[in-house]
Amino acid sequence: MRSFEPPRRILMGPGPSDVSPRVLAALARPTIGHLDPAFQALMEEIKSALAEVMKAPGHACVPLPAPGSAGMEAALQNLLEPGDRAVVAVNGQFGERMAEIAARAGAEVARVDHDWGLPVDPERVGAALKAGKTKLLAFVHAETSTGARSDAGPLCALAHDCGALSIVDCVTSLGGIEVDAEGWGADVIYSGTQKCLSAPPGLSPFAVSAAARAAIDARAAPPRTWLFDMGLLMGYWGGAGGRTYHHTAPINALYGLHEALLALLEEGVAASHARHLRMHEALAAGLEAAGLELLVAPADRLPQLNAVKVPDGVDEAAARGRMLARYNLEIGAGLGPLRGRIWRIGLMGASATPWHVRLCLTALTDALAAQNYPDASRAALAAADAKLGD
Amino acid sequence: MRSFEPPRRILMGPGPSDVSPRVLAALARPTIGHLDPAFQALMEEIKSALAEVMKAPGHACVPLPAPGSAGMEAALQNLLEPGDRAVVAVNGQFGERMAEIAARAGAEVARVDHDWGLPVDPERVGAALKAGKTKLLAFVHAETSTGARSDAGPLCALAHDCGALSIVDCVTSLGGIEVDAEGWGADVIYSGTQKCLSAPPGLSPFAVSAAARAAIDARAAPPRTWLFDMGLLMGYWGGAGGRTYHHTAPINALYGLHEALLALLEEGVAASHARHLRMHEALAAGLEAAGLELLVAPADRLPQLNAVKVPDGVDEAAARGRMLARYNLEIGAGLGPLRGRIWRIGLMGASATPWHVRLCLTALTDALAAQNYPDASRAALAAADAKLGD
Repeated sequence: MRSFEPPRRILMGPGPSDVSPRVLAALARPTIGHLDPAFQALMEEIKSALAEVMKAPGHACVPLPAPGSAGMEAALQNLLEPGDRAVVAVNGQFGERMAEIAARAGAEVARVDHDWGLPVDPERVGAALKAGKTKLLAFVHAETSTGARSDAGPLCALAHDCGALSIVDCVTSLGGIEVDAEGWGADVIYSGTQKCLSAPPGLSPFAVSAAARAAIDARAAPPRTWLFDMGLLMGYWGGAGGRTYHHTAPINALYGLHEALLALLEEGVAASHARHLRMHEALAAGLEAAGLELLVAPADRLPQLNAVKVPDGVDEAAARGRMLARYNLEIGAGLGPLRGRIWRIGLMGASATPWHVRLCLTALTDALAAQNYPDASRAALAAADAKLGD
Repeated sequence: MRSFEPPRRILMGPGPSDVSPRVLAALARPTIGHLDPAFQALMEEIKSALAEVMKAPGHACVPLPAPGSAGMEAALQNLLEPGDRAVVAVNGQFGERMAEIAARAGAEVARVDHDWGLPVDPERVGAALKAGKTKLLAFVHAETSTGARSDAGPLCALAHDCGALSIVDCVTSLGGIEVDAEGWGADVIYSGTQKCLSAPPGLSPFAVSAAARAAIDARAAPPRTWLFDMGLLMGYWGGAGGRTYHHTAPINALYGLHEALLALLEEGVAASHARHLRMHEALAAGLEAAGLELLVAPADRLPQLNAVKVPDGVDEAAARGRMLARYNLEIGAGLGPLRGRIWRIGLMGASATPWHVRLCLTALTDALAAQNYPDASRAALAAADAKLGD
């Protein structure tokens, strides 16, 4: 066993995305104690930055000390009590996971199933909400397994109109497209650090509304989870009333998140969204010029997650293997019913640059040509260049 | 908001401990994907190193993607089903937390309460185990809140003799004193990274026996927790049968754990224990020369966590504040019934060196002298020097 030296990689899968040198440098700063006054000041800055980036000025915002799935678990386990009815929209792997965790929390789960690749359908969700007294609606804003974007505001409004709370999975959306907890009227939103925030995986930014906190306070029994008990977590992240010991915060990971949030605020949240969109348009133009099709209809596409159909006769794993071996470039495979049928190309955070778009088009068209697909590298790059305008 | 530059700190509290430059450097290596072949090789090395350090060759060993409390939560939530009887030894804050989490898991909790500062009493635990059909015994090997060490082997044997499983909290023990999952016959042990392993907080090394895995497989219903479902976690960490997607591993934190485990194996686990003991003996000699008393009886003391009684008339918070302000040195306060009555001085991992012992004695005697306690710095250092022999 020796010190681990990671190979050079360019990360254009569904996450993690490339982490910038400034965030990597932040991770390596000396560890201080989690009760240190300087660390408490850092926590306050992180909470404020999260509220700004999530547009959640009235929510309590904290990063949970575990990967994005922790946000999903915390949201469902804190809000659901056994016997509660939960409407869960399922249009991909992560909606599926929400339904699974809601069932584990003891809820009666009303699934609203969709074909993978479609956005969540407000009409069917509305009908499901009205079919019984419902505690909450849960859905995924940006389905990482398909690249479909759902319209969060109207869905949250439907829940609110039925007296239900709303949980919105923003793991892949935050930093890449508009997230607006306040504007949507979302009760809980959560994200991950390894997507468009471009920090390493390991933390889950989490925002909870006053109504959701009241629902948690009104539980008959505490949630089964102690580590993700929002009452205890909020006490630890404190505020005017001071802090109450709970777990030990992951200090260095929080240094990284702080630096990643700072980078996003320096760029500007809206500017980051515009950059993601521009890179997506260039990539999509290049893919189409190469004769490739995207899974999701244009109006519903996530800029940061591009699901590309594998052409007939092409071995998708062999193509990815060649891209990794020859270009050090990682893209993602399909999950569940899309396994073997799509590639997932991420343009997230520090991986959403013209350089990444061009490298990906070069590597993918090379991998296709190696499988006797017509060589399309020049056409793909020219189409991307036209969109990039540089 | 600006980039965070942590103040210079020397960490001699109950954790986190000082993180060595080599581990900090590992954290900052470029992030790669969690499905990358190179990352899978890293995971295999981490599993092997954990099995060696935990002396758990027959256990399945994985690091959970969250701080040490995650290990406690995972152990209890996976092994306990509603209605199960659990005997929990409570001799400090972390035994208290075990009882709380066991109750949340729906168990009937039989507490065996002890005065804080005492080790767990095998006789009373044995009686509690025999008082009813019991699913498991849970106790803390190294109580971080008091500095008391319990004798894990005989306690696990008592559980085994009653047909019960055993869970041993090794958060503060691993790397500092002998941990021997196989020799003890422990079914689940877990630790944290920020104590004697001297990595940043954020991960929980976890080992589970074949008997415990069989008990988990035999559950009537899956555990409420999805993120810490051991079946899913073990599938993700894989082995011969490959890996099944679950969460996204905290890549860079695992780089740090890998480097910390490598450092421990290079030093030698037994050599690390001997170093911790030697530093403790020097610190204890210095403290006694300064007229200070330790909370725990000599036979039960943890080398890595020294609970020092605050002398009458001394303001404990003011003393800690002065040590932090003048020496950048962090030590810990007491918790629960020991609040205001003790200081907790950690000698963990990279913080267990002669330099740390001398700095701590210097800073503490200075802080005491500032409160009109007789100046004892020369006597304390001389007593420590005599033990250090250099």
